[in-house]
Amino acid sequence: MPATSHLSSVYRPDFGLCTDLYQLTMAAGYYQQGMHERKAIFHLFYRRPPFGGDFALAAGLPLAIDLIKGLRFSADDVQYLGRLKGNNGTPLFKEPFLNYLQRLKFTGTVHAVPEGEIVLPHEPLLRIEGTLIECQLLETALLTVMNFSTLIATKAARVKAAAGEDTVIEFGLRRAQGIDGGLTASRAAYIGGCAATSNVWAGRYYGIPVKGTHAHSWVMSFPDEEAAFSAYAEAMPDNGIFLVDTYDTLEGVAKAIETGKELRRKGHEMLGIRLDSGDLAKLSIAARELLDKAGFPNVKIIASNDIDEHTILSLKEQNARIDTWGIGTKLVTANDQPALGGVYKLAAIQNEKGEWEPKIKRSDTLAKVSNPGKLNVRSFHFMERGTSTPHGRVLYNEFDGTDMKSYTLENGEKVALHQHDAMRETDLLVPVFVEGVLNYAPPTLQSTRASALKNWRWWSDGKEGNQSTAYLESRLYDLKQSMLAE
Amino acid sequence: MPATSHLSSVYRPDFGLCTDLYQLTMAAGYYQQGMHERKAIFHLFYRRPPFGGDFALAAGLPLAIDLIKGLRFSADDVQYLGRLKGNNGTPLFKEPFLNYLQRLKFTGTVHAVPEGEIVLPHEPLLRIEGTLIECQLLETALLTVMNFSTLIATKAARVKAAAGEDTVIEFGLRRAQGIDGGLTASRAAYIGGCAATSNVWAGRYYGIPVKGTHAHSWVMSFPDEEAAFSAYAEAMPDNGIFLVDTYDTLEGVAKAIETGKELRRKGHEMLGIRLDSGDLAKLSIAARELLDKAGFPNVKIIASNDIDEHTILSLKEQNARIDTWGIGTKLVTANDQPALGGVYKLAAIQNEKGEWEPKIKRSDTLAKVSNPGKLNVRSFHFMERGTSTPHGRVLYNEFDGTDMKSYTLENGEKVALHQHDAMRETDLLVPVFVEGVLNYAPPTLQSTRASALKNWRWWSDGKEGNQSTAYLESRLYDLKQSMLAE
Repeated sequence: MPATSHLSSVYRPDFGLCTDLYQLTMAAGYYQQGMHERKAIFHLFYRRPPFGGDFALAAGLPLAIDLIKGLRFSADDVQYLGRLKGNNGTPLFKEPFLNYLQRLKFTGTVHAVPEGEIVLPHEPLLRIEGTLIECQLLETALLTVMNFSTLIATKAARVKAAAGEDTVIEFGLRRAQGIDGGLTASRAAYIGGCAATSNVWAGRYYGIPVKGTHAHSWVMSFPDEEAAFSAYAEAMPDNGIFLVDTYDTLEGVAKAIETGKELRRKGHEMLGIRLDSGDLAKLSIAARELLDKAGFPNVKIIASNDIDEHTILSLKEQNARIDTWGIGTKLVTANDQPALGGVYKLAAIQNEKGEWEPKIKRSDTLAKVSNPGKLNVRSFHFMERGTSTPHGRVLYNEFDGTDMKSYTLENGEKVALHQHDAMRETDLLVPVFVEGVLNYAPPTLQSTRASALKNWRWWSDGKEGNQSTAYLESRLYDLKQSMLAE
Repeated sequence: MPATSHLSSVYRPDFGLCTDLYQLTMAAGYYQQGMHERKAIFHLFYRRPPFGGDFALAAGLPLAIDLIKGLRFSADDVQYLGRLKGNNGTPLFKEPFLNYLQRLKFTGTVHAVPEGEIVLPHEPLLRIEGTLIECQLLETALLTVMNFSTLIATKAARVKAAAGEDTVIEFGLRRAQGIDGGLTASRAAYIGGCAATSNVWAGRYYGIPVKGTHAHSWVMSFPDEEAAFSAYAEAMPDNGIFLVDTYDTLEGVAKAIETGKELRRKGHEMLGIRLDSGDLAKLSIAARELLDKAGFPNVKIIASNDIDEHTILSLKEQNARIDTWGIGTKLVTANDQPALGGVYKLAAIQNEKGEWEPKIKRSDTLAKVSNPGKLNVRSFHFMERGTSTPHGRVLYNEFDGTDMKSYTLENGEKVALHQHDAMRETDLLVPVFVEGVLNYAPPTLQSTRASALKNWRWWSDGKEGNQSTAYLESRLYDLKQSMLAE
């Protein structure tokens, strides 16, 4: 049922022009200089963990794959570009470049962190090795989809962590930033730990479970609440969740109980009630009491109304009796930090002789200095009694080979890496495209979600023992220092 | 060049399932009750102005039109719904309802506020009169597109107001909430007063002017800054804007000046320099001095780097010499309030006899109480020396007719409306669909933008004399009071 293709389920498939104009003006410049097919390496990474946390949950890779596959320009696209003018009315782009674009397709090699992995600041989520032109043309849209998916998956993981064993359902489409803002958010929220969504497109295209009951307008369309609940129960006897706060909430609960009895007489069971306003702690406690007394201990209490991880923690402290959390606006827009701020930086380029030259983006702010080379992330786990615990991450430069002997602390001190039997090493980046050919099948969303939940718990529990930034392998550290010293 | 269709330029065109599941379960319930073709009236409106302001700038109507035209269910969509299960494994939806859905198309009547108009809290942006089922199925996606477009247009208007006569360019795609988050934001930002966007899709599909130069990676791909600027000037002699802060900003300005001289020798003129980091006030003042001394008084200084309306005002206070503002993340995500929170409320429904019954959503919070009836907004303007100044807004119920004699203040006092020659009355809501047929051609984006700029200035300048909420026409006020008293 899940779509094998993602963006292309809902979008028309040519993504070449889905970019910033400067990518095209630079592309034209590289073309004019004869540099456009020179190979380069770019990394997509973030610098500061979102929401005041320590790390982020990677998401968005299948959307990035769609963009890369869709890097092409239709005849109409090229004609559009041909009509753009520079300052004095001359065409911005020349014919040979436009002809080149019309034949362009992606020929590069892409490595990526699989969805559901924990990523630390400065660890590449994507590494693109390709011609300068294709690397640049992809930058903007890759940032868009990776930034947003990773942001929402991370937010959802935080909400799920606050909710503990309770169920979290994502309800955000109506407040999302555009229709794919909603759809992509539903997908990322599911990866981050939501159990379901209200968004039917997300159900249809991504195979995410969909949930929903009725709105206040349903109740208002009937002479009274009893009639409304009763009619809903008749239509959906096996989906009986009643929104009880259209008028007086606790009276609403009493009426839902009557409807629940009616359902039970007919061989069905009421599933839940939903609270959408008022003091959710007090109301949920009172509702739970009414339900239990009436013989409905299994009926779930669902709460919604501008909830996020902070509200959940606060309501739990007030002993709220809420089983299921419906999270909308604050999840799908990542209300407290609506952008991740990931970047895409040049880290190496081939010179005229075809030799790789490392590149670094300098900055007065140390955290803004990029890492040079062809980066990967070595992840170390301890194996104990059959379970593997994450221990640490070392960022290294594949141009130095893949074996490593030490990493360097911020003060310049080198720390030897001792291998022992109880340690397992994996590289976080895996090949996705090899010389233009897609070579990666994303796991199902369900299995991605399961590993995300496990990864988030691991990293949250063992946080003290882990770094908040990956260490640099010693040769990479030295290269960076020498480049900064220049 | 601008697309006549909007969402359908980039999306595949069936939007039926782009909704919350509960709209479909309610639809099934209405169908089962035989109520699904009963007529209802819903209004889409917001309750609190965004960003601590007094009003919002309406945007998103053509996207809403696309959604309404696209309200249909493909065979695959219906099959998907047929596979959904209730709690005990029985199908959630029954065959007759699914068959009904597959034949559904929109038959209702829609009124809307044209894009670029000022809207106050509780004034309908959309009024949908249609069968209960079509009204409900459209709710979610209409909220998504209207909420987001109105939010971003309003944010852009605030940024443009802070920038005054300076040019504002939107640069946000890479940080947007999904690809259409970026595209829709570019469109709304243009309506709100941006002069151009970096987003080429927005140029291609909406005819918005596109702007852009080069990135830090361009500079880093060359041996040094001189070589990079010179190569860019060669490729784009009539689009010569140089990013000067890859290494040392003022040295970068000096190198841009050298390139500008080289361009001038060849008969071209450098257009601008861009500052993307550091103390933008100090750097722009120093750069202006260098440029003026070197004979480049017309070269523009463009600033970017996490700017919003507050940064602009602060930089202007520091006498920054910035001509053009590049606004990204904080505009396209509406960083300080990433959701408008608009709602969609039932306001009238036909009873079994076909008579209209007004409906109201009660709430303990007065601002959350909805208005009953078939609403429109009467807008009064003073005409003086050929110019028209907005004066006030009165919300009225078309079921009471369209002539009005008085409105009622919050304290219940009735104020007579005196007509005089200097006053012009218009109704804000205009027909868009009449019984299922599209009957409205949106103005060009360019003319919408022009009227938005004018409207924003009017309402901002005359703010004191205007209300922050539309008054209620007296009969509507009385109806609401009597319904609340019940």
